[in-house]
Amino acid sequence: MTEGASAPSYPKSSRNRVKRRHDRGFYDHETVHRILDASMLCHVSYVIDGQPYCTPTFFWREGTRLYWHGSSASRMLEHQAEGQKVCLTVAHLDSLVLARCGFNHSADYRAVMAFGSAYLVTDPEEKQRALVAMVDRFFPDRTASLRPSSTQEIKATSFIAMEIEEASAKIRAKGVADDDEDYELPIYAERIPVRTVLGAPEPCPRLLDGVARPSTLDGYSEGRLLDDALRDAYFAEYPAG
Amino acid sequence: MTEGASAPSYPKSSRNRVKRRHDRGFYDHETVHRILDASMLCHVSYVIDGQPYCTPTFFWREGTRLYWHGSSASRMLEHQAEGQKVCLTVAHLDSLVLARCGFNHSADYRAVMAFGSAYLVTDPEEKQRALVAMVDRFFPDRTASLRPSSTQEIKATSFIAMEIEEASAKIRAKGVADDDEDYELPIYAERIPVRTVLGAPEPCPRLLDGVARPSTLDGYSEGRLLDDALRDAYFAEYPAG
Repeated sequence: MTEGASAPSYPKSSRNRVKRRHDRGFYDHETVHRILDASMLCHVSYVIDGQPYCTPTFFWREGTRLYWHGSSASRMLEHQAEGQKVCLTVAHLDSLVLARCGFNHSADYRAVMAFGSAYLVTDPEEKQRALVAMVDRFFPDRTASLRPSSTQEIKATSFIAMEIEEASAKIRAKGVADDDEDYELPIYAERIPVRTVLGAPEPCPRLLDGVARPSTLDGYSEGRLLDDALRDAYFAEYPAG
Repeated sequence: MTEGASAPSYPKSSRNRVKRRHDRGFYDHETVHRILDASMLCHVSYVIDGQPYCTPTFFWREGTRLYWHGSSASRMLEHQAEGQKVCLTVAHLDSLVLARCGFNHSADYRAVMAFGSAYLVTDPEEKQRALVAMVDRFFPDRTASLRPSSTQEIKATSFIAMEIEEASAKIRAKGVADDDEDYELPIYAERIPVRTVLGAPEPCPRLLDGVARPSTLDGYSEGRLLDDALRDAYFAEYPAG
């Protein structure tokens, strides 16, 4: 990026502008993408006959496009119209914040809301790329070591994609923030960090003799933050970010 | 509950019936509530002019009613019509599952989708109860030790509630599940547990001398699962469940 040039950002509209606490709002690609890429789980919202649905599912990013797949989307796919409006949200909880009054109780968090129009991936080349990315984006190079997908499996897997039209990130990262005069009160206050960590990997009990854990999974080690493992995997698979 | 009587359950409809993998679907209050009560964070979906929004926010349950509050709901509140349709979703990621083919890559998880019509809490008694519960549901008895809320703060806090009309839970908890013949292949497979845990509490640096951590926070100790701390807190505040 040229020095002095403004960083690429998502446009703001009434849809994605952070309205309350706008000091917590960010629109630049880097901030938005960093929060997305540290997550495997998103919540996708869509509307069927005026009824909103909010479906948790796995997703990944390619540039300014988001992909998610199959099972959780089936209800949505059934009602798929070209360009169905979608809001895809990712939220990380980073701490619980206990303040000196109820009003200032809060949490530290990082969240992204991304808006766009969803489409079913029908282009064979794009679908083929998604079949690989749905595994390799999380576990780099893994697809090459797997039993190849059968025609039946490929047929049974559907992908939905959405070009991000607008997005915003919202971040709170300041722990306890009380009203000035409340710091004089003899009331206990604290921040409790919350971390999503990996446990010790549990090899399948039915592994054949001599089948060892590949070094490409080294990033997924006991005690590591899931965020960090996912972000590292992302950059291993998409070095351009 | 009378022995032999069926457990209280949410009704099934086309809205909440788990369509794919219906073996993973549950509708009984106990299963649904247990998943809800182990979470502080939910995602609320609602529709404004045909556009879906998916907002992460904090929530709690009272019986078959869900409450959430203020800030994150502001956009929704502006457009609040009596009985705005809402879907509130909670998801816990419990593991990453690496199988012997791409198609069987999966995750263990617990999720709930709850449907209903939202309303703004305007009844003074209900609002007063919510002001206490928004703190004490997570940190039992804490409100009594805090600086009381000011009139201005109470005015600035809005609560939305929703009676759960329908809900479903979806649970996967089986680790690696490959096709029978794939177990014969020399391919590495594993389950990686994912846990959301509490870090060491960080007391506010501006605590007055002699202000100690109250024992009511003992459940929030370093290394504990957030799920467990939240569920214990729930039962401390709502012993009837």
